[in-house]
Amino acid sequence: MESLSEFEMIARLFAPMAGEGAFELRDDAAVLKPNPGRDLVLTKDMLIEGVHFFADDPPASLAHKALAVNMSDLAAKGARPRAFLLGLGRAERFDTEWLTAFAQGLAAASGRFGCRLLGGDTVKAGQLILSVTAFGEVPSGRMVRRETGKAGDALFVTGTIGDAALGLKLRLEPEVSWVRRLGVEHRASLRDRYLNPQPRLSLAPALLDHARAAMDISDGLVGDTAKLAPHLGRIIDIPAIPFSPAVQAAIALAPDLLDTALTGGDDYEVLCAVPPEAEEKFAIHALQLGVPVTRIGRLVAAETGALWRDLDGRPRHFLHGSYAHF
Amino acid sequence: MESLSEFEMIARLFAPMAGEGAFELRDDAAVLKPNPGRDLVLTKDMLIEGVHFFADDPPASLAHKALAVNMSDLAAKGARPRAFLLGLGRAERFDTEWLTAFAQGLAAASGRFGCRLLGGDTVKAGQLILSVTAFGEVPSGRMVRRETGKAGDALFVTGTIGDAALGLKLRLEPEVSWVRRLGVEHRASLRDRYLNPQPRLSLAPALLDHARAAMDISDGLVGDTAKLAPHLGRIIDIPAIPFSPAVQAAIALAPDLLDTALTGGDDYEVLCAVPPEAEEKFAIHALQLGVPVTRIGRLVAAETGALWRDLDGRPRHFLHGSYAHF
Repeated sequence: MESLSEFEMIARLFAPMAGEGAFELRDDAAVLKPNPGRDLVLTKDMLIEGVHFFADDPPASLAHKALAVNMSDLAAKGARPRAFLLGLGRAERFDTEWLTAFAQGLAAASGRFGCRLLGGDTVKAGQLILSVTAFGEVPSGRMVRRETGKAGDALFVTGTIGDAALGLKLRLEPEVSWVRRLGVEHRASLRDRYLNPQPRLSLAPALLDHARAAMDISDGLVGDTAKLAPHLGRIIDIPAIPFSPAVQAAIALAPDLLDTALTGGDDYEVLCAVPPEAEEKFAIHALQLGVPVTRIGRLVAAETGALWRDLDGRPRHFLHGSYAHF
Repeated sequence: MESLSEFEMIARLFAPMAGEGAFELRDDAAVLKPNPGRDLVLTKDMLIEGVHFFADDPPASLAHKALAVNMSDLAAKGARPRAFLLGLGRAERFDTEWLTAFAQGLAAASGRFGCRLLGGDTVKAGQLILSVTAFGEVPSGRMVRRETGKAGDALFVTGTIGDAALGLKLRLEPEVSWVRRLGVEHRASLRDRYLNPQPRLSLAPALLDHARAAMDISDGLVGDTAKLAPHLGRIIDIPAIPFSPAVQAAIALAPDLLDTALTGGDDYEVLCAVPPEAEEKFAIHALQLGVPVTRIGRLVAAETGALWRDLDGRPRHFLHGSYAHF
């Protein structure tokens, strides 16, 4: 495949997914205006080769993931996606063939999420860098905040926890005993959760209506529950935490994986605090929206600290609360 | 100096420059709404260690530059800065001391440009990555576009051309003859233009009122005049191009540097197309705003192509039109 110049690349691969205000990516800036009565919600998640993904991950999966992790932030804020900018830092070994597959995956993700490309920047770099800035909309003044939960609020999570963390572990240590003993389908399902996160965009209306606070779970459930309400304590019932059949099977083979499931990253599920009087309405609304939610515990007064109750009712402690970059 | 966690770093170094809608950087997203009757203008320029800057450039200069190059895009679009997001990829050798100086420089630049921090992302990386997304405002529907110039329009540039390109060359080859023979003050001035670009934000009102098209000059004047009007030809009078005393002195010592001055990058001046009937008004308005502007040529019909008239009236050709990343 011939090599494309920066401008051919933009025109051929990226311009087809450009949205209104992008001027077909033939300008140095784009224009965006929220719809009447709406605020723009801005978020920015960068993915770095060797830190957030592997150089040989399928390019279409990487494109999906770069957009999906940003959509996950928008979802947790109750926002509906609108547009994004892409900063692409590229080492030479990511050639035109790679770029073409990447752009195809990005166009598919952009279509699926209803989020159009408005512009960005393409530069030479020593490693692959995917720096997405995403824009969503919420009714004015109603973005669901992170630290606004109150003592007494129920904590809910969407979907299942720990799949992606085990998917990464399995990828890093394919020869360890539990991986070899885990069924083929379970392995495939964990791997897929790591590679292809599914942001919970359909939950947004239920969060706007009923949640007092919310965030997406990206750095591990243990650390992220602390970030949700650093000013409060929390009691979490580990037996209530939803695990997929694959994660359950893995933990049965190697009980230490429970820690990995609860402290590893990349879940891209939503964690939210719901006032007691709204618990039932929230659960029903989520059900109607097709999003599975599970109550895993409650926010309590700060004095309690973080109490994770194990299967036997005793507190469980974690060595590393969450993934930290620094 | 002790080492800061990601969260301490954000709270201590970055939260003080956070703007309205940033929630003190204690959320995963921010909120932004343009003022009534305004559009948001979005731009994103990434700087990569070893590509756009040197690892040992002063951290405060790098912070200034990362914001300034984005401000330069806003300026050329007629926009007034409002807010920015910072994606910071950091290799471990950029330690807390470095980060503290970087944040001080960023706070100073943020104040100078009237552009507040709304959020971002901080990640581990193999090299330093500064990925800024900036937001400005223009009256609705009036962003100054790039490719909307017409044949007959005058081409103007702000300031002087080539200083930064020679500043970079001097940095890369400090021992060559012209550098050793150039005066100390000239050397300092070229180096400063490379390290500390000054975006032409005060020109915005004149561009909104009188320019038909505009862009900032970041990849070299020769290549950028082609990007301004790829559908047209252009005649540029090289003797009309404004050069600083330092660039003039350098070219006198080594005539080949004229090519470097015209094709090197990092000018961060504005190039614009002004209809003939508005030339005088534009020049006067720019003068009132304190921005030096110079007419360097004109857009013409496509058949003419790109004609750069040399001192002797003959056409001059350039080997490399502009800096290209790919």
